[in-house]
Amino acid sequence: MKRRDFLKGSAFAGAGAVAAASAFPAPAIAQGMRELKMVTTWPKNFPGLGTGAERVAKRITDASGGKLTVKVFAAGELVPPFESFDAVSNGTADLYHGAEYYWQGKSKAFNFFAAVPFGLTATELNAWVYYGGGQELWDELAADFKLKPFLSGNTGVQMGGWFNKEINSLEDYKGLKIRMPGLGGEVLRRIGAAAVSLPGGEIFPALQSGAIDATEWVGPWNDLAFGFYKVAKFYYYPGFHEPGTGLSCGINLDVWNSFSADEKALVEDAMIAENNFTLAEFTARNGDALNTLINQHGVELRKFSDDVMKAIGQASGEVVAEAAAGDAMTGRVYDSFVKFRKMAISWSKLADQAYWNARLLPFNYGG
Amino acid sequence: MKRRDFLKGSAFAGAGAVAAASAFPAPAIAQGMRELKMVTTWPKNFPGLGTGAERVAKRITDASGGKLTVKVFAAGELVPPFESFDAVSNGTADLYHGAEYYWQGKSKAFNFFAAVPFGLTATELNAWVYYGGGQELWDELAADFKLKPFLSGNTGVQMGGWFNKEINSLEDYKGLKIRMPGLGGEVLRRIGAAAVSLPGGEIFPALQSGAIDATEWVGPWNDLAFGFYKVAKFYYYPGFHEPGTGLSCGINLDVWNSFSADEKALVEDAMIAENNFTLAEFTARNGDALNTLINQHGVELRKFSDDVMKAIGQASGEVVAEAAAGDAMTGRVYDSFVKFRKMAISWSKLADQAYWNARLLPFNYGG
Repeated sequence: MKRRDFLKGSAFAGAGAVAAASAFPAPAIAQGMRELKMVTTWPKNFPGLGTGAERVAKRITDASGGKLTVKVFAAGELVPPFESFDAVSNGTADLYHGAEYYWQGKSKAFNFFAAVPFGLTATELNAWVYYGGGQELWDELAADFKLKPFLSGNTGVQMGGWFNKEINSLEDYKGLKIRMPGLGGEVLRRIGAAAVSLPGGEIFPALQSGAIDATEWVGPWNDLAFGFYKVAKFYYYPGFHEPGTGLSCGINLDVWNSFSADEKALVEDAMIAENNFTLAEFTARNGDALNTLINQHGVELRKFSDDVMKAIGQASGEVVAEAAAGDAMTGRVYDSFVKFRKMAISWSKLADQAYWNARLLPFNYGG
Repeated sequence: MKRRDFLKGSAFAGAGAVAAASAFPAPAIAQGMRELKMVTTWPKNFPGLGTGAERVAKRITDASGGKLTVKVFAAGELVPPFESFDAVSNGTADLYHGAEYYWQGKSKAFNFFAAVPFGLTATELNAWVYYGGGQELWDELAADFKLKPFLSGNTGVQMGGWFNKEINSLEDYKGLKIRMPGLGGEVLRRIGAAAVSLPGGEIFPALQSGAIDATEWVGPWNDLAFGFYKVAKFYYYPGFHEPGTGLSCGINLDVWNSFSADEKALVEDAMIAENNFTLAEFTARNGDALNTLINQHGVELRKFSDDVMKAIGQASGEVVAEAAAGDAMTGRVYDSFVKFRKMAISWSKLADQAYWNARLLPFNYGG
């Protein structure tokens, strides 16, 4: 996805937000209640992303009995969306909810805690962060910016995107005008595509007018809402560029350190819980939306050929390795990541992948 | 797995447990602290299962600042493992940690909230329970037993098992003496195998002596600890019988209803968080253990052929449908489950499965 451009129009509403924050009642403060400001990179109640931010805020508020009342500010309400990181780092806000690849201008290492082309799935990202040394590296990286980071959501595997030209061979990518920002776009440029970045709101008219031939977005749930099926013929899979995008919540380090032991415990549980819940929501909603796209809107699915995926895989390996070569910290994160990725692939080959392939064989189950 | 028989030898240690419980200090009680007893179906610190129970207990204790102090009793310490359900239902204990298929004697509907042959993966089970109507049905089912149930862990996809005979065709299952309890065993009997139930502690000698030709257990992490590689030649995949076994925690309904709103919120977060964490641990540990099995112990991997999986799939569909036909409640759970399963398959085919297949193509990534 990369919602960066999509959000550019958001208004800066700092003054209003400050007024809202000061409305937290004095008697509550006297009772040891505390209000925390969560800034986000999402429009208000944006499906799965904005709603996930609201849920994690509610979890912390509810589990603490309001001792930690987390108030959510949509993109632009308190600070512009991509100043969320700095706002929490410098204490203007207390928490952010976003995706770490938005901070790659600070360090390319942040990409690995959201998604990189041909990287980890949601379950694998969790395993790396919780049990493979990922959290320790992330803590070290974020501490330089006075932040304590957590995974707090995942979109699952995203779709390859909407195309008005069929991709039958690698040749068909030559000169293809496709909207794909970030590392995924860089990968496609290496195989000859004219990958561009476009604000979300401009994608639909650009596809309609033929200014672009193709675009990626998220998955069936979010894509259905945007109506891309009206202006694109083919819906391609799989999405190589974001195979399980981690959403994250960073807390100002001084704020985190000010929490009592039980507050730290309940905040951590809320993060891990919402990480699980968001993925569950995407999984359920994507399945429903896919049915709607196919059965109500007659969308034609297309699968990328093995030749195309192999070339994109090779380019992805190069792009990710080069992104990691710039500084020592990113190099350490990359080394840990690719080592874990190799191990995870050896296991998923025998486990989920083999099981899913077997489950698709023709046999009757459930009528 | 089905650890039922494995645990039969566990001693009943009720008296000691009562003594331990009464050791909760009176001053703590006076400060509104409360001790809750969690009984489990697992031996103490059993990898992933017993340790997961300990972690969820610690999460609740820590997040509540000890207001809800959860004390864990291993299998047999307070009640025998498979009396955990009744013990919590009748208030002898406050919570249980186990897997719902252990309660299938109460209702076959419970199977669906743990694992059924060729059923849902971990991510899909979460999506069904959290967003597909599963939790509502489970609440209704469990309320009849005065319980409030939660998912609180998942093993991920399990392995097919350890074999001393190669399975090259369906014929090779005829008369095969294999240890596989529960619905999975019933499936294998339909295709001609002599599936038996054996206590965990008896599997190793039975394989060694040739009394059985094969056994299933869990996955590389747990199987390595049991040393099956010493007495079996081939390690088969995938495991059709438990594609993502949900672990669960049931709370006595009166105890649940006695919780304040913030206690309910933090308990729920602890459950969902540990559900996520346990799967992450299995994913990371299984990958490491698989490497050890192959590279240090020379284990030979074997994949079940499509013909074998297709026949087992067909038999699985029959066995699961028949299990559901016995009573109205199980029928309703089954209907919801198979509807969700169908939708989840249509999505996973485009998402995780397609991505994983693409990721295994030959290209260089990470050297």
